[in-house]
Amino acid sequence: MTTPGDFEIGRSVLTGYTADNELHRALTILRNEGVNPEVVVEFTAERDGVFCGITEVKTLLDRVLPETGREVWALDEGVSVAGGEVALRIRAPYASFGLFETAILGTLASCTGWATAAAECVEAGDGIPVIAYGARHVHPEVVGVMDYSAVVGKCASSSSVVGQQLHGLTPSGTMPHSLVLLMGDTVRSIMAFDKHMPPEVPRVALVDTFKDEAEEALDVAKALRERLRGIRLDTPKERGGVTPDLVHEIRARLDQGGYSHVDIFVSGGITPERIREFVDASAPVSVFAVGYYIAAASPISFTADIKEIENRAVAKRGRIPGLAVNPRLSQVL
Amino acid sequence: MTTPGDFEIGRSVLTGYTADNELHRALTILRNEGVNPEVVVEFTAERDGVFCGITEVKTLLDRVLPETGREVWALDEGVSVAGGEVALRIRAPYASFGLFETAILGTLASCTGWATAAAECVEAGDGIPVIAYGARHVHPEVVGVMDYSAVVGKCASSSSVVGQQLHGLTPSGTMPHSLVLLMGDTVRSIMAFDKHMPPEVPRVALVDTFKDEAEEALDVAKALRERLRGIRLDTPKERGGVTPDLVHEIRARLDQGGYSHVDIFVSGGITPERIREFVDASAPVSVFAVGYYIAAASPISFTADIKEIENRAVAKRGRIPGLAVNPRLSQVL
Amino acid sequence: MTTPGDFEIGRSVLTGYTADNELHRALTILRNEGVNPEVVVEFTAERDGVFCGITEVKTLLDRVLPETGREVWALDEGVSVAGGEVALRIRAPYASFGLFETAILGTLASCTGWATAAAECVEAGDGIPVIAYGARHVHPEVVGVMDYSAVVGKCASSSSVVGQQLHGLTPSGTMPHSLVLLMGDTVRSIMAFDKHMPPEVPRVALVDTFKDEAEEALDVAKALRERLRGIRLDTPKERGGVTPDLVHEIRARLDQGGYSHVDIFVSGGITPERIREFVDASAPVSVFAVGYYIAAASPISFTADIKEIENRAVAKRGRIPGLAVNPRLSQVL
Amino acid sequence: MTTPGDFEIGRSVLTGYTADNELHRALTILRNEGVNPEVVVEFTAERDGVFCGITEVKTLLDRVLPETGREVWALDEGVSVAGGEVALRIRAPYASFGLFETAILGTLASCTGWATAAAECVEAGDGIPVIAYGARHVHPEVVGVMDYSAVVGKCASSSSVVGQQLHGLTPSGTMPHSLVLLMGDTVRSIMAFDKHMPPEVPRVALVDTFKDEAEEALDVAKALRERLRGIRLDTPKERGGVTPDLVHEIRARLDQGGYSHVDIFVSGGITPERIREFVDASAPVSVFAVGYYIAAASPISFTADIKEIENRAVAKRGRIPGLAVNPRLSQVL
Amino acid sequence: MTTPGDFEIGRSVLTGYTADNELHRALTILRNEGVNPEVVVEFTAERDGVFCGITEVKTLLDRVLPETGREVWALDEGVSVAGGEVALRIRAPYASFGLFETAILGTLASCTGWATAAAECVEAGDGIPVIAYGARHVHPEVVGVMDYSAVVGKCASSSSVVGQQLHGLTPSGTMPHSLVLLMGDTVRSIMAFDKHMPPEVPRVALVDTFKDEAEEALDVAKALRERLRGIRLDTPKERGGVTPDLVHEIRARLDQGGYSHVDIFVSGGITPERIREFVDASAPVSVFAVGYYIAAASPISFTADIKEIENRAVAKRGRIPGLAVNPRLSQVL
Amino acid sequence: MTTPGDFEIGRSVLTGYTADNELHRALTILRNEGVNPEVVVEFTAERDGVFCGITEVKTLLDRVLPETGREVWALDEGVSVAGGEVALRIRAPYASFGLFETAILGTLASCTGWATAAAECVEAGDGIPVIAYGARHVHPEVVGVMDYSAVVGKCASSSSVVGQQLHGLTPSGTMPHSLVLLMGDTVRSIMAFDKHMPPEVPRVALVDTFKDEAEEALDVAKALRERLRGIRLDTPKERGGVTPDLVHEIRARLDQGGYSHVDIFVSGGITPERIREFVDASAPVSVFAVGYYIAAASPISFTADIKEIENRAVAKRGRIPGLAVNPRLSQVL
Repeated sequence: MTTPGDFEIGRSVLTGYTADNELHRALTILRNEGVNPEVVVEFTAERDGVFCGITEVKTLLDRVLPETGREVWALDEGVSVAGGEVALRIRAPYASFGLFETAILGTLASCTGWATAAAECVEAGDGIPVIAYGARHVHPEVVGVMDYSAVVGKCASSSSVVGQQLHGLTPSGTMPHSLVLLMGDTVRSIMAFDKHMPPEVPRVALVDTFKDEAEEALDVAKALRERLRGIRLDTPKERGGVTPDLVHEIRARLDQGGYSHVDIFVSGGITPERIREFVDASAPVSVFAVGYYIAAASPISFTADIKEIENRAVAKRGRIPGLAVNPRLSQVL
Repeated sequence: MTTPGDFEIGRSVLTGYTADNELHRALTILRNEGVNPEVVVEFTAERDGVFCGITEVKTLLDRVLPETGREVWALDEGVSVAGGEVALRIRAPYASFGLFETAILGTLASCTGWATAAAECVEAGDGIPVIAYGARHVHPEVVGVMDYSAVVGKCASSSSVVGQQLHGLTPSGTMPHSLVLLMGDTVRSIMAFDKHMPPEVPRVALVDTFKDEAEEALDVAKALRERLRGIRLDTPKERGGVTPDLVHEIRARLDQGGYSHVDIFVSGGITPERIREFVDASAPVSVFAVGYYIAAASPISFTADIKEIENRAVAKRGRIPGLAVNPRLSQVL
Repeated sequence: MTTPGDFEIGRSVLTGYTADNELHRALTILRNEGVNPEVVVEFTAERDGVFCGITEVKTLLDRVLPETGREVWALDEGVSVAGGEVALRIRAPYASFGLFETAILGTLASCTGWATAAAECVEAGDGIPVIAYGARHVHPEVVGVMDYSAVVGKCASSSSVVGQQLHGLTPSGTMPHSLVLLMGDTVRSIMAFDKHMPPEVPRVALVDTFKDEAEEALDVAKALRERLRGIRLDTPKERGGVTPDLVHEIRARLDQGGYSHVDIFVSGGITPERIREFVDASAPVSVFAVGYYIAAASPISFTADIKEIENRAVAKRGRIPGLAVNPRLSQVL
Repeated sequence: MTTPGDFEIGRSVLTGYTADNELHRALTILRNEGVNPEVVVEFTAERDGVFCGITEVKTLLDRVLPETGREVWALDEGVSVAGGEVALRIRAPYASFGLFETAILGTLASCTGWATAAAECVEAGDGIPVIAYGARHVHPEVVGVMDYSAVVGKCASSSSVVGQQLHGLTPSGTMPHSLVLLMGDTVRSIMAFDKHMPPEVPRVALVDTFKDEAEEALDVAKALRERLRGIRLDTPKERGGVTPDLVHEIRARLDQGGYSHVDIFVSGGITPERIREFVDASAPVSVFAVGYYIAAASPISFTADIKEIENRAVAKRGRIPGLAVNPRLSQVL
Repeated sequence: MTTPGDFEIGRSVLTGYTADNELHRALTILRNEGVNPEVVVEFTAERDGVFCGITEVKTLLDRVLPETGREVWALDEGVSVAGGEVALRIRAPYASFGLFETAILGTLASCTGWATAAAECVEAGDGIPVIAYGARHVHPEVVGVMDYSAVVGKCASSSSVVGQQLHGLTPSGTMPHSLVLLMGDTVRSIMAFDKHMPPEVPRVALVDTFKDEAEEALDVAKALRERLRGIRLDTPKERGGVTPDLVHEIRARLDQGGYSHVDIFVSGGITPERIREFVDASAPVSVFAVGYYIAAASPISFTADIKEIENRAVAKRGRIPGLAVNPRLSQVL
Repeated sequence: MTTPGDFEIGRSVLTGYTADNELHRALTILRNEGVNPEVVVEFTAERDGVFCGITEVKTLLDRVLPETGREVWALDEGVSVAGGEVALRIRAPYASFGLFETAILGTLASCTGWATAAAECVEAGDGIPVIAYGARHVHPEVVGVMDYSAVVGKCASSSSVVGQQLHGLTPSGTMPHSLVLLMGDTVRSIMAFDKHMPPEVPRVALVDTFKDEAEEALDVAKALRERLRGIRLDTPKERGGVTPDLVHEIRARLDQGGYSHVDIFVSGGITPERIREFVDASAPVSVFAVGYYIAAASPISFTADIKEIENRAVAKRGRIPGLAVNPRLSQVL
């Protein structure tokens, strides 16, 4: 297992296979023409967000830029970035990193998109923890960076093992519906869970597989008593989804049964807007699990512009030549 | 280089590291309890789209399912799928594939999302080819599957090398702004391009780096004459982006100059809606290049439900027990 | 018990106590002045609807108008009426009925409003029967006329005993939540119902009091088997209300259990719009029960205008003097 | 004539004929089963409003509940009630009042709806009195309770005699259009009114039957001078209805003629929104008469839930078992 | 008095004083530089409309262009023109007409705007004549051309004397409110009108100055009988304006009185939308008088572009060089 | 050349030819009847605006009213006027000015409309000067009064010579596109301008005729250096129009080239809303040129009402008789 934050850059990234083909052509032409000046390229965010991906990008740049004659400045991982703000500046010979423009832009776009969506949920939660459950909505090759980005966006944890390898937090999770179906009964499932899982794994029962949530919640509480850490409400949309009223009722019934130590986890189509509905209704939610909203976050794209060539200010039409002023940048390489 | 369509399943996928952690727990419990029935799991689309990802999923399943006692039925790659329709059905011992539910769902969700967005652009184009240029908007680890999905959605090609490895079509591309800036002049750039690129690479000049598009278009046409295949309009949004009027004017000026053989490629913030504007205005566009719209496509998620356990119809609350009827499925394993 | 359609006009109506006080004053003045001409008053609908209330109005007029020298023309009970159309015309000495203008207008307004709302539900149901369940939403003094009006609007029946006295159809109904709560169990309730109710009363069980609807539906079906006529879904809004998906699922589970003879009654916040959602989704609903939508129908008001005085055409400012032409009217008194 | 506030409960209410038929069945079953526990039923408002109907409900309960072993708590007539708030709580043997659930709910729903609509008008009037003129828009059997409810909602009075029997205020009213038409002239009408009405009845002339309001207003003022209390503007919608400009003009013309003692009553399609337009335009209105808006108020429904059975907390699914806390309730029986 | 269509070009127009000052400067510079080529200037409409103003523009061009070496092509007065269509093309030495670009553009913009607005009203009227009454809403210097443009847009006539000088139709009009006020009575006014006006002037009475329209309409009809051609409804907005209901009622009351020969003219805030309301309600309007809607029409602007210089195709950036193809143009000079 | 503010009343105005024909008829009838009382007519604004046109109206009244027995009160030129406020009051024998009601209303309507639109632009500019460029959008006969009105609305100047004759400010303007096209080159044009124009005329170059604005701006700055006062951006809509980003970029490129003394004029479809976008984006605009928005301003109409006849308060129906109170009026004649 790797150390948290220790990004491994994929082979096809390092070979440039993931780059736009026209960059390969451009580097061939420039090499043939003997053109390889020192340039400064600035990466500018297209809209506001929580900046994310720079740790991975730095790992990449450290491998490809020459050890001397390079200079990289950037915003810190996890800070806010404004639309139009320069978030990364690279000064180096063009040929050393021109091919990686696509990978750098893509890493920042995806990660900043995910981190920003996560942060919106966390902010809506107003102190109630949010965990990222989005693995089933994205291609498995990016599950790790997505979960990492969600934690950069202040999620309390995420659901995948590969995410843990990057952010270092214990993965969160309860039990899948398949376990309950295969065991044939919710109470039997949580008791098997209790029997076979190490004591440090919290016992959280999923309570909507077979019966009404209120009924199953009381059943599992009666079965595990003090050892039950929580129940998870994941009511299917065919049954109306989880509502603030449901949380209030389950809380009341648990409390009336003497189970006020049991937490309530809420999942299923959770968005910042729905989180706010729970918060506005003072629904006693212990944890929100957010899947699709974070996973489906639109990328927050960046543009890369050559702003200096051999210390001469330049810019393509539509951009202001020369380096932008941004005192928030700090040197990372 | 690999054969087109030859998907390589990542190591962390095969180890289950990209899975939700709760699936690891469930499998441990079931193993300890000695529960491993033959089950049927159905994967149902949450909304309409162009089904994509099944080739990669099949590759994965072929590696993990037992050679006998397995049965996999699915829709074909690239056909339409309706919301609520079962698109994949797996019959096998649960323990053999339970851990891969997350990866299967995620692969289908991402790929179907991208293919659907691509298909929307292609349909809007009404016969004008569309190429996928989205590599810079997504994490590099998924550039290949995104470009593959775009081609499944009927894009004519895509921009990355890694995409070519999966779909087998020549990657498309013109020249980057950086080449023009480094060469210092648009005409000089296209002439260097012409000098150093093999003859089969089409000469397409980017004409908005320094001057007005109409001026640069005529300049490069005068320089390369018959050898110029096309010009690409990528007007920055600070200059109003590309408009149908601009395409009409450039076409007229090129024709008046005797360059009616020169194609016009259009890029920059292209969406189905904007494509329709060009088509409705009869703007003589030769090719549309679409980046962000495809790359930022929301996943089209699937749900996985156990519908039979040892030939007994089951379902969690909210779902109809037993197998759904879908004559469009065919057996793939 | 009264004969259906046999309206009893209340004492305070006949004394004129329910009239606007200014009509009492007017009649006093006219009497003192010796003014009591034969007049024609026309009652005009303010907007489109299903005309209702004329049977009751006719009963009233028959009691108060002189036996000779009177003439009453009206649309038939239950036909459509258009905004601006004359629906009732009375020719008689003014003093004989001037005081009852308020009661006539109010009867037509309320009844036409209810009948129209009922007809909207029936039309949305596209052949699926609709029953009126609105008694709990209106003052008890008008429960009977409301239920009567709903049946004029083509409802299959209604829930109150007093409604039955007016429209003559067997009142519809299943069992209240209170019965289930007091019996302590849904199955026990339907079995007690089955034991004590005469055989002609259909056995319809309410299945959402304690447990999930799917579970309770199967439980009561197992208990009563062939004798169970139907189940009623009345899912509280805190549990998401009844949805087309829920009806589909319950139907499938009942059929899989061999209970395809069991009907599904749907209630709870039903409106024409929601009925259309069920119909559009081909949800196998047997009966809709509509309460609030019919009960809360806005009155469809009428205006009363003197159009002739002793055969001379008159009208107040804003109205056209003289009788309107309406061949749809027929003489009722 | 009855004492104000002295509600007479109708015969068909007391016999339970206005109840939902299923309550009759439930009581039969429970009696046969020997089930008649002491229960607590709570009545909860579905949305915000002005609580009304409790005086009538108390009259009903006092007749049907046993003299001992009963306890009734409620909000006061006319106070605000919030959506979700318990407004009435009954503790008694179930059989003593189960049949009256429908009547209690319906009384509260209708009366609270009317009182709330009236209160909206009164609040919009910002100190200008509002009188209820809605009798012609509702069935005559509920004219009295509607007018009573409007006065609970702070209307200054209402138009019907039967309303007076319940709220005890002198009914308001001017003269009907029919009087003017039958007398043939507005001035003649007000003079006859003045001649035949007792001196305590205010002389208020309706001034839009034959001529322009400005002309008729001055004519009647000239005729009655000091004895004219006011004029009523009821301009038909075919003539544009009453507008703030019209009120300003009539006021100015009356003042210029020396008739500044004459009040201006405004009626015809008045709603809170239109009242605000008059108030915002500082139109010198003396009284607003509101008919349809109050009469057509949607019921504000209540739900009835058994919350205790023999001192044990219960609730159907979706509700929180046990008594709600509401210190605003006071004991009424 | 001038011949219809005989436009007199103002002195300050001919001196170029109404031109943009920068055109004076440009002509000075070009003269000093000895630049005066033959050019072709095309005038293109910015949006769809009814083309108007070309008769006046032709008059101007005939005075300023050289008799030989000039060529002017244009659309016909009053035909439709599409946005983007060339409506006027001038070939001549630049110095002969460069100064008049401003005047030509302005004439076409204003006149096309007015004619288009008029045509919208006429089309809405669906055969009912429309007359232009807008003189009081525009500066008197353009009353004539506005009324001329309205007639080009198919208005039946207009209200001003100066309009008559241009379009040659008898000016339309009834009587002003001031006449009625000064005569002190509507009947007296129409009788004086009848006494002093020549027989060919139609007697049309304005019937809303003092009393209700229905009353005054019958009064003037009784007074003039066969000699009354029509009445004009111009109800002030303080009295709700003219409505379809009012027209129906007045028509009915006139017909009942035996005055079916009396026409009804409608004015006051008339727009195409309001005309459609009358037409949709089959209101028996004889003539609509439209003031503000035509007078306040936004100009439909044109752009002037040099497209050829000494037979060489040119265009500024954004326009297509060379002459546009438009077979609808015909040579006018 | 005339003195600023010295309005010349057109011949057809003074003859009454621009008046509504019905005023001619009314004056004939009144003369024949011998009716010519002293009247007071009040002119009331229909909506809020910047009052304009009174200087010209006063010139007209001074010519037509008798020297004695006249009294004119009015708001000052350029102050705000509220909807419903009396802005002009004339006391004189009716026959002396009745015919000019149309001209007075029209002058005030047009001029107040233009001044108000200009003021909206000026207010949006928040201190950045606005000049009126609308001559090409209105008929040449009103170019002068439109430009005068724009200056009353606080525009810094306007483009026409005839406007200068009325408001006395130097007309503003740069160079037309036609000059650049005829000179064949932007630099050549500004150099010819510099050579032939007197030194007091500011050198402002139009920089979008042939090339990109950034390129042409630097070219003309290099050519004229210190003598260049500014550049004008008038980017055609086919090239996206002028945007705040473009202004920022041009400013930066000019500053980087050492041309920070060069002002930036912005034109092309400018409206208050677009001005606010520039201001909100802190775009360094020096001057806005506004054409269509001011020229197309809807008239702000006035109504004229006789309020006294021989000192007796009168008014037509819908208006309040007698003089309105308005202490803001001052006597002008």
